[in-house]
Amino acid sequence: MRSKFNVLVGQSGGPTAAINSSLAGVYETAESIGAGVLGMRYGIEGLFDDKLLDLSTELGNSVNLQLLRQTPSSYLGSCRYKLPHPDEDEQPYEKLFDLFKRNHVGAVLYIGGNDSMDTISKLAAYGEREKSGIRFVGVPKTIDNDLEGTDHTPGYGSAAKFIATSVAEIGRDSSVYDLKNVTFVEIMGRNTGWLAGSSVLASQEGAVCPDLILLPESPVTEDELVARIAELLNEMKSVVVAVSEGARRPDGTLMAEPPTSAVKLDAFGHEAALSGASRYLATVTANRLGIKTRAVEFSTLQRCANHLASATDLDEAYTLGGMGVRAASEGATGVIPAIRRLSDQPYLIEYVTVNIADVANRERKVPLDWIREDGMGVTDDFVRYARPLVCGEVANLYVDGLPHHIHMLTWGR
Amino acid sequence: MRSKFNVLVGQSGGPTAAINSSLAGVYETAESIGAGVLGMRYGIEGLFDDKLLDLSTELGNSVNLQLLRQTPSSYLGSCRYKLPHPDEDEQPYEKLFDLFKRNHVGAVLYIGGNDSMDTISKLAAYGEREKSGIRFVGVPKTIDNDLEGTDHTPGYGSAAKFIATSVAEIGRDSSVYDLKNVTFVEIMGRNTGWLAGSSVLASQEGAVCPDLILLPESPVTEDELVARIAELLNEMKSVVVAVSEGARRPDGTLMAEPPTSAVKLDAFGHEAALSGASRYLATVTANRLGIKTRAVEFSTLQRCANHLASATDLDEAYTLGGMGVRAASEGATGVIPAIRRLSDQPYLIEYVTVNIADVANRERKVPLDWIREDGMGVTDDFVRYARPLVCGEVANLYVDGLPHHIHMLTWGR
Repeated sequence: MRSKFNVLVGQSGGPTAAINSSLAGVYETAESIGAGVLGMRYGIEGLFDDKLLDLSTELGNSVNLQLLRQTPSSYLGSCRYKLPHPDEDEQPYEKLFDLFKRNHVGAVLYIGGNDSMDTISKLAAYGEREKSGIRFVGVPKTIDNDLEGTDHTPGYGSAAKFIATSVAEIGRDSSVYDLKNVTFVEIMGRNTGWLAGSSVLASQEGAVCPDLILLPESPVTEDELVARIAELLNEMKSVVVAVSEGARRPDGTLMAEPPTSAVKLDAFGHEAALSGASRYLATVTANRLGIKTRAVEFSTLQRCANHLASATDLDEAYTLGGMGVRAASEGATGVIPAIRRLSDQPYLIEYVTVNIADVANRERKVPLDWIREDGMGVTDDFVRYARPLVCGEVANLYVDGLPHHIHMLTWGR
Repeated sequence: MRSKFNVLVGQSGGPTAAINSSLAGVYETAESIGAGVLGMRYGIEGLFDDKLLDLSTELGNSVNLQLLRQTPSSYLGSCRYKLPHPDEDEQPYEKLFDLFKRNHVGAVLYIGGNDSMDTISKLAAYGEREKSGIRFVGVPKTIDNDLEGTDHTPGYGSAAKFIATSVAEIGRDSSVYDLKNVTFVEIMGRNTGWLAGSSVLASQEGAVCPDLILLPESPVTEDELVARIAELLNEMKSVVVAVSEGARRPDGTLMAEPPTSAVKLDAFGHEAALSGASRYLATVTANRLGIKTRAVEFSTLQRCANHLASATDLDEAYTLGGMGVRAASEGATGVIPAIRRLSDQPYLIEYVTVNIADVANRERKVPLDWIREDGMGVTDDFVRYARPLVCGEVANLYVDGLPHHIHMLTWGR
C-alpha cells in the first residue's frame, strides 16, 4: 500500500441499491485529490481482523467503476457492529487508531444509516479527545429514509421506484378475474412509513392504486381496516392495501401474528426480523369478509432491485460520497454531507454539511399532516416530496439479457 | 358494432407480461385485413353475460397500442372457466354460437395456456360438427412454459428474465455480512421446473448463483438437500437455493408444510394455491444446521414484472397473435400458431401452425437429461435453451419515474 495520505472507506448496515454509488463517489473523488483509497471488508467489524485492501487494484478501471454503480448490495461487505462507549471500553478504539496510523489513514468515510452514524460519531469524538488528525465523515444511506438532518437518504428513491412500480403491476394483475379480492403488499419500514407511503406513486391519471396504505405512524384497529375494505368493495372489485411491516394497532402491538416467543432485540435495541403483517391481514380479511385475499412480500427485493434504480438516487448517492471526501479534505470531522431541498417543482437541491451529533440515534418519521384523514393513506404533500426521488432511469449495461454486476468482494474468488 | 366480418378475441388463465402483446398482435393484424375486432371481457365466462366490446374504441390509436404492450396483466380480463363436453351439456355451446352469429364473428382467437387450449379445442370440434364457418384459433401463453407443440411459450421469457435478474440481485444482497447463511427463493411452477430452472441464468462469468435448484421433475429428500447445503457451506459463506413451488420428495409429497386440510382442486383438477416450500425449507435448514436462513417468494411479481420484460418475448408474443389471425383468415380452425427453433446460436426460429388437439391437456416437462447429476440444478443444455428467451430490453415509456400503463378495462372508469 502507498505511504501517502489514505482515505479508508467502509459500508455498514443493510445494503441498498445506491450504497455502491456512494462508494464510487468516494473512490473517484479521493483519487482526484491524490489520496489512496483503502476499503474495509465487512465494515468496522472487519477492521478488527485487519480486513482492509487497496481499492485501486479492484476499481482502477472505468468499466469496473460503472459496473459498481449498477451492482446492488454492499460491494465491500457490511456489518451491524456497535462500538462501545470509550468510557466503558477503550480497547477497540486503541486497536482501530493503531490500524489507522499503520495504514496512513487521513480520513475515514463510513457509508451507512442511523447506526453507522453512531459509530462515526463515537470515532470522531474519540479522535478529537486524543488530538488525532484523522477526519471522520459519515455518508448517509438507508432505504428507510429515517435520518434527521437531510431531506432524504440515498437508497430511498430506488427502493420507492421499485415499490411503486411493483404495486402498479400487482394492482393490474390482481384485477384480472371477475371476482372480489383484496391484495396486501408488505413493505419494509419498522418504525417509519416512508417506504410504504411511496407506494402512492403507483397511482396514475385517476387510477388510484394502492387503495389503502398502513403506516407505523398511523395506527388503526383491525375493525377499522376491515370496515374500510368492505366499504371499498362496494364500489370496486379489487382492493390493494400497502402494509408497512411495522403497521400497528392503537395499543402499539404489531399488525401481525402475536409473536410466539419474546421479541428479540438486535445489537442496537431494535425489534429484529419483523415479518408477517400481510399474511396476517390476508387471513383476517378472508375470514371476516369471506373473499379471496392474497399476501405479497417484497422482502429484500425492494432494497436490491438495482435493475430499476432511480437515476436521481444513484447520482445523489455518488455526489454525497464525493462531498464526504471533500469535507474531510477541507478539515471537517464528525459531519455528514446532506441534502437540502430548495424546490419540489422543478426539483432543486443543494448539498450541505451537518454535524453528525444532530443526526445519530434519532429517527425521522412521516409528518402526521402528510397522512390522509382516514389514517390509511398519504396526502399530496407526500407525493410532491417523493415523486422527484424516483425520477430518471439508469441505462444499465445488459449482458446476455441480464444487468451485469461487478464481481462482489464478498464472494471471494 | 360493424356488420362486417369480426374477429373476437379473449384472454384466459393467469396473466403474464406478454399476453397483452399478443392481444396487440391480434388487434393490429385483424385491422390490417379489414376485420372488426371485438374483445371478450373476462374470457369465455364473460361472454355468457354478453360482456364484449368493440376494441377499436379503446385501442384505436398508436400510443394506446404501445402502452398495451408494456402493460402487465390481462387487459380484457380473464377467467378459469371450463366448458363442459358438448355431449354432456350442449347449452353453453348453443348460447355462444348464437352470440357469435349475432355479432358477425368469423374467427375466435383465445390467448391462453393449457386449459384455454382445451376450451378452443372443444369449440372448434363443436363448430365442425355443426358445420359452422367460424374459425377457432388458440394463441399460446403461459409463464410455466409447459405447452406441447411449441419450442416455448410467450410469457416465459419475461418471467425468466425477472427471476434470473432478481436471483442475481438477491445473491449479492445475501452475501453482505460475514456470516454463514442460506437463502431459499421460491419460484412458480406446480409440476414443471422451467421457471425455477431459469434462475440458472443469474450465474455470471464464473460466479455461480443460485447454488442449487429444486425442480418438480427431480425429487430429493430433505436429508439429501440439507447434506448438500452443509457441504457447500464448507466452501462458501452464502448459499442460494432456487425452489420450485412444486418441489417434491421422492414419495411425491410437496416440499412444504403438510397441508392442514385436504388439498383443494381447482376447476381443472389442479392442486390450488401452492405456497410455502421456501419458508418450510428455511425453517428445516435453520433448525438442522443452526444457521441464518431466509425465504423470499417472488409471488405474482414474476408474472407481471413488465418493467423488466424480455424484448424477444414481447415480440414473439405479438407475432404469434398476428399469426393466429392469419391462420384463421386462411381458413384454419382448431389450430395454434407455434414456435419451432432452428438454432440456439445465433437464435433462430420459425413460426408454424400445429393442431390444438396435439397440445391441449398435455404438459411438457423439463427433459431429465437437462437436470444436473446431483438432481439439484440444470445443465448447459438448459442454459443454451433458455438464454436467448430473456435477451433484449424493452424501451418502456416512463412517466413521472414509473413505467406507464394503459388504463385497464378491468378497472372500470
